[in-house]
Formats: sequence, C-alpha cells, structure tokens
Amino acid sequence: MTERQRANGGHSGPGPSFRRRALLLGGAAAAVGGGTAAALAARHDDPEAGPVAVAPPGAETVPFHGVHQPGIDTLPAQAHAVFLGLDLAAGSGPAEVRRLLRLLTDDAARLMGGRAPLAAEDQELPALPSRLTVTFGFGPGLFDAVGRTEDCPAVVRQLPAFPTDRLDPRWSGGDLLLQVCSDDPVPLSYAVRRLVRDARSIATVRWTQRGFNPARGSEPAGTTPRNLFGQRDGTANPEPGSTELAEAVWVRDGPSWFVGGTMLVLRRIRMDLDTWDDFGRDGKEMAFARRLDTGAPVTGGTEFDEVDPRAVDERGMPIVPASAHVVRAKARTPAERMLRRGYSYDDGPTPDGAPDAGQLFAAYQADAATAFVPVQARLAESDVMNLWINHVGSAAFVIPPGCAEGEFVGQGLLGT
Amino acid sequence: MTERQRANGGHSGPGPSFRRRALLLGGAAAAVGGGTAAALAARHDDPEAGPVAVAPPGAETVPFHGVHQPGIDTLPAQAHAVFLGLDLAAGSGPAEVRRLLRLLTDDAARLMGGRAPLAAEDQELPALPSRLTVTFGFGPGLFDAVGRTEDCPAVVRQLPAFPTDRLDPRWSGGDLLLQVCSDDPVPLSYAVRRLVRDARSIATVRWTQRGFNPARGSEPAGTTPRNLFGQRDGTANPEPGSTELAEAVWVRDGPSWFVGGTMLVLRRIRMDLDTWDDFGRDGKEMAFARRLDTGAPVTGGTEFDEVDPRAVDERGMPIVPASAHVVRAKARTPAERMLRRGYSYDDGPTPDGAPDAGQLFAAYQADAATAFVPVQARLAESDVMNLWINHVGSAAFVIPPGCAEGEFVGQGLLGT
Repeated sequence: MTERQRANGGHSGPGPSFRRRALLLGGAAAAVGGGTAAALAARHDDPEAGPVAVAPPGAETVPFHGVHQPGIDTLPAQAHAVFLGLDLAAGSGPAEVRRLLRLLTDDAARLMGGRAPLAAEDQELPALPSRLTVTFGFGPGLFDAVGRTEDCPAVVRQLPAFPTDRLDPRWSGGDLLLQVCSDDPVPLSYAVRRLVRDARSIATVRWTQRGFNPARGSEPAGTTPRNLFGQRDGTANPEPGSTELAEAVWVRDGPSWFVGGTMLVLRRIRMDLDTWDDFGRDGKEMAFARRLDTGAPVTGGTEFDEVDPRAVDERGMPIVPASAHVVRAKARTPAERMLRRGYSYDDGPTPDGAPDAGQLFAAYQADAATAFVPVQARLAESDVMNLWINHVGSAAFVIPPGCAEGEFVGQGLLGT
Repeated sequence: MTERQRANGGHSGPGPSFRRRALLLGGAAAAVGGGTAAALAARHDDPEAGPVAVAPPGAETVPFHGVHQPGIDTLPAQAHAVFLGLDLAAGSGPAEVRRLLRLLTDDAARLMGGRAPLAAEDQELPALPSRLTVTFGFGPGLFDAVGRTEDCPAVVRQLPAFPTDRLDPRWSGGDLLLQVCSDDPVPLSYAVRRLVRDARSIATVRWTQRGFNPARGSEPAGTTPRNLFGQRDGTANPEPGSTELAEAVWVRDGPSWFVGGTMLVLRRIRMDLDTWDDFGRDGKEMAFARRLDTGAPVTGGTEFDEVDPRAVDERGMPIVPASAHVVRAKARTPAERMLRRGYSYDDGPTPDGAPDAGQLFAAYQADAATAFVPVQARLAESDVMNLWINHVGSAAFVIPPGCAEGEFVGQGLLGT
C-alpha cells in the first residue's frame, strides 16, 4: 500500500470510499453546530462499518434560514469574501425581482448546506462549504424597480459626500448585492458562479470585489485579524453574541419587512502602502493610537483596553494625537455603534509595480444615518490615517431580515 | 474577564503578551520542521513564565536555502499562489540583473523565514508565513540581457505552437518569473508587494496571475485537490519525496549552473464552465476517464489505480473513449513525466455574468522538450476535454537550482 493509499483510508477495492464516510461524518458534525447537511447525509450509501473518519473541517455549515440573514454575525468572518454589485435589467418589475429572489434564495440555502443548486448535478464542489454564507442586499434601484421607492431609506439611496472621497463609479452603487463568504476559495468560487448564472437573465454585474482575511486557523482562535497596514483591525467591534452587537446591528423599530434586517455600507479604501512603508514605526503607531504588535493602546494596557486620549507623558504632553484614528473612529453614542466585518483586497501590482491594495470596509448597522455617516464625517474631517487612504468605492444596501423555509429573502417587502 | 481576553491568553496587564510567546513557540516549531525563524526567536523578550501557548499553524516555514529552489517539491502545494511575469527594463545588463537577483534572493530568504526584507520595519505581516515560498524563473529575455542567449534552452525560448492554442499576449512570456505561494493570503500579499517594490527599479510587471487550491486543512491530509471542473487533479503526479519525482523534475545532466534546477511551463487554461455545467455527469466522467466523486478510474479500482484503456463492457465495447483525457495525458515514457502543481483561477464574472475561470497549469520537469511538449501535442491532437478548455496564456522558464547562504539564485549562471 502506498502512502497515498493509506492517506485515502486504506481502501483498495471499488465501492463506497472513505471520502463518502468522511462527508457523512462531516455532515453530522455540522448539524451539531446548527447547520444542515441533508444532502451529505443523503449520500450515505455505505452500510458497512469502516475505519472511523474525522470530519474534515470543510464540512462545517452555517444555517441559512433564520430571523437574520447569515454572513453578518457569522463570526469570525470567513477567510474569503466576494462582494458582487448587480444591476437589474431595464424594465424589471416586481414579478421579475420576486422570481429572481426566490431562485437565488433557494440556491443560497442549498449551497450553504453543501449542495448544488436545483437541477445542477455537481456534488463535489459544493460538498465542503467551509462555513459558506450568502447574504443579499437591496440598493435603491431595486426599491425603484418594484415600485417601493419611498421604502428605501434616504441614507441607502444616497450617502453624503465626504471631503476625502475619491469615488470611482466602477466600485460604487448597485441594485442588488450578493455577499458570498467562505473559509475556502473553491466552494466560494463555485457558489458565486452558480448564483451569477441564475441571476444573469435579469441582472448584469456592475462590480466584483474579492477580499481576504488571514487563513482560518493560521492564528489561534479569537485573534483579531490584521489589515494590510499590519494593524489589528476590528478590536473595537462588539463582542460576538453580545447584546451590544445585536443592538448595534439589527433593526428593531421600523416597518415589519425590515425588522431583523440591517444596513451595509461597503467602502473600497485604497491604501497608499508605499508611503506607509516609509513612515517610521512609532509614527504609524501614533497615527492609529494602538501598537502594531499587540493592538494595545499606545497609552498602555492590552488589546481590548481603550485608548486614553487624555493620557500625558512625563513632560505633561499628550501621548495620543487628537486626530489619531481610533480616537476619531470610536463610537461616541450607542447609535454610532456598528459591526465592522472588513476584508483586505489586493488587485496589484499595477504594470509599473505600484500596489493596488487596501480594504473592503464592510460595516453593518441598524441605521447608517446615525452610525457610519457621523463616524465617517468625523474621520473625513480629521484622521491621521487619511494620509495613507483614499475611499475609491462606495455602496450602501438594505439587508432585509432572514427568511424561514419556503420563504424567500425580501418576501416581507415584495410579497409573494 | 471577557471571552476575548480569555482567548487572548488571560493577560490583563501591560507587558509582553501571549502573542509574542505564541510567535516564539511558532518559531521553535518551524525550526524543528527545518525552517528558520530567527527573527521570531529574537523577539522573545519575555523572561517570565506564562501559560504555554500552542504554536499557531501559520508559523510553519519552508527552508529557502538548499540544492533546489523551494515551491516546487513543497507539497502539498500551498493554498494560494501568485505568479508574476516581469520584464527587465531596456538596457539592463549583467550587473543590473545580478544586483536584482541578489536583492530578491535576500528578500525571499527573509520573507520565507517570517521576517521583513532588509530595511523594512514590518514585523507583523511577515511573521506567520504559512509555508511561504518564493521561486525564481528565467525567461529568454533574461538570458539575452546577461549575454547568455545560447544558454537558454530552445524549448524555453519558444514552445511549439499547438493547434488548440488561443494565446493572449497579456498572459504570455516574461523575462523573470516570481512564483510566490503560501497557505495564507495575508503574508502572501505582503511578500509579493515587497518583492515587486524591490524589483520595480529594473523591471515592469508584464502579468500577474492569482491562483488558489482548497484551503489547507479543509480536507484530510493527503487528499488530491479538486479543480473547478470538480475533478481531482494531480492524481497521476509522482509521489512526494519519491525517486520518481526527483528524476522527473530535477536537471541531472547539463551545465553545472543548471544541475539541480528544472523547467516550468505555465499555461493559463480557461474553462468553459457554462457548457461543462450542461453536460451530463456520466459524460463528464467518460471525458476524463475518472469518477468525479472518488477520482477512481471509470474502469474500476480506487483513485491511485490506473485507467485500463482496454477494458470492455458486457457487450464487448470499450468502456473508455480513446480520446479520454487521462488516457491521452498519461506519460508514455519516463522522459514524459512531470510534476503538475496547478492552481485554479477565478477572475470572473464578466459584466454579462459569464465565468472567467480555469486553471493555472504549472508543470515542472527536467526537460520540457521531452515532457510537456509531447504530452501537450498529444492532447492538442485529441482530448475530449478540449471541448471545454482553451489555452489562453503560455510562458516557460528555466528554474535555476537553489542556493546556499551568502549566494543568490542564478549565481551559477551569472557569476558574482
């Protein structure tokens, strides 16, 4: 027996393989975690006992149906994300949009459960979804298409212009958002491809933005990921599972079609990494007000301690610049809280060797008018980090609540 | 103590953190594996005993120095790869190329060891390299620039044209290849950016191709990865660590500057996934001659058994089409053997929603004239899979042998 045959479970004859048993067990493990893996379990056609396989981590699933859509409080954020901004074809009305959302909802539920979309014969590419999630968002054009213009919140229709904006239309706007995340780029690629295939009869692709975070398991569980500046990014987020997170993110007061939903602001923030590289380490830490290595405040403590903007050094001079990033970015009221769930992007280098990289800043909040907008206004007014960043893309979406089995995402708004 | 503080090692006071100890231990673990992590160890400035941390998997390193370059028999192939084709600036001569390779060699050794390039102050982004490798390849233009035109093998200078080629110059050619691989896209992005920064005074970026394989650990160790057709791809490769692999890949007879090197053929193979989707499952398996689920031959057996092209069914009809992919692709002589170390790519969808995805086929062999060329000629002549693929990019490179500490890659060819 070769080393590879041993790795493959020691099977040498035909018939149901180790692989299938592993998938079955993976499905069972996922179900314990709250996911569904009916398709995987259904493939258990091996009545023989065999060597017990450990479920591959890729079998882990996230439940699709529920009060909220997945992919928002699915934390830690998966390692890979694709954000797609779609535009509805001219003349699309409520019937077309309803049909599209019904189809894509069914696709999403199947894909997240480790199964191919209806009528697709693929079993292998979706089988290890690695916490795949699909999240839908509605831009102003979708509200218009279905005759519900007045239901689109003003802040989603048009974010204010900020003085530091350098927006490029090719990374901005969109009628329908698909946010697809997974810890594994292979099932992610498959899911995006199949969703777009089912959407393209009624929609075109306005933009595609791919993002990444550190590989899952690269650092110990609970470690805050780093962005491409090398900073730990997300330290100030509400804790997963906390009341604070729920209050920041989910719509509680509002029309019934929106309760349990949220708003997404997606900004493409290009980093000037060349000039950042050439800035001194102390200066970088002061610009952010946190240490690069630990993420702890420059005023002392550990990562989850807050920066003390009033701390002074032995000469009585302030330690932290008033325009340090985290001082300006910190929520000053409960209504300013948001859940940031960003990804790095790297589409570079350009032909001359310059970086084309930065962050896909994705923030969820119950009301962007009271959260993202005032915080970004403060940052645009003054933030040392503005020396090295440009907002080059912007889009905002209503994220409707989740749906139950048999329903589709947006059904509360669109009716059946 | 919050959940996150517990995850962070229970520290609540200032001072050296869990993170640093974890890095230290990670460095130690990597050193056991043969890598170097001097920078990580040097950062151990915490003399206190503390809770024992498990080394994060991201700390794993691959040794840079050696008889062969890394990133070739580094198996399994890392989850992520960036292939960069660079062109030397006009007028570059031996002195410039030597200086460039000396600098990039030093960068590569540091980055693979978890350290920033010389003079860069970054400690965090390179610290968890996740098996980062950097591999250099020389195209015909580099041989010309250094006045060694006659040393470039003819097959690297010009691969034969194959009747199925649909080559696009923007994915073809290049004077200098950088192949950078890691299991984690974050240190990979950092490494590519710093290497390009150090190269761009003398070179421009001709093309950048990003590829991925299933996330590390998604499937059990030893599982052959799947491509975007859903096929297990690489089953026929020589076993890692085998004599067969060494004989297929490494140059043994040749000029001394080349012994221990190899040749890389990189083809960008676009997949027509729409028509593939619509083809039946049985037909897909017959086109490949292996099962989609297990990778086993359609003629029976398990993944690492060979397809029997002479097998017949109960009516005496051949089971496997004569033009099935693996029948045509199989090496017919030892000289045809190669190590395929491919990656999927997905740059789609296009604005109309069509896929733009496929495979970065990367094959290493001692002599492409006796390996890739006859095999590809056979496939171009007849292979059922040609229905769904197009070769849209092509590049070939001499991969010089590895180097010892104090040397640079290519020193045997270029002298000091």
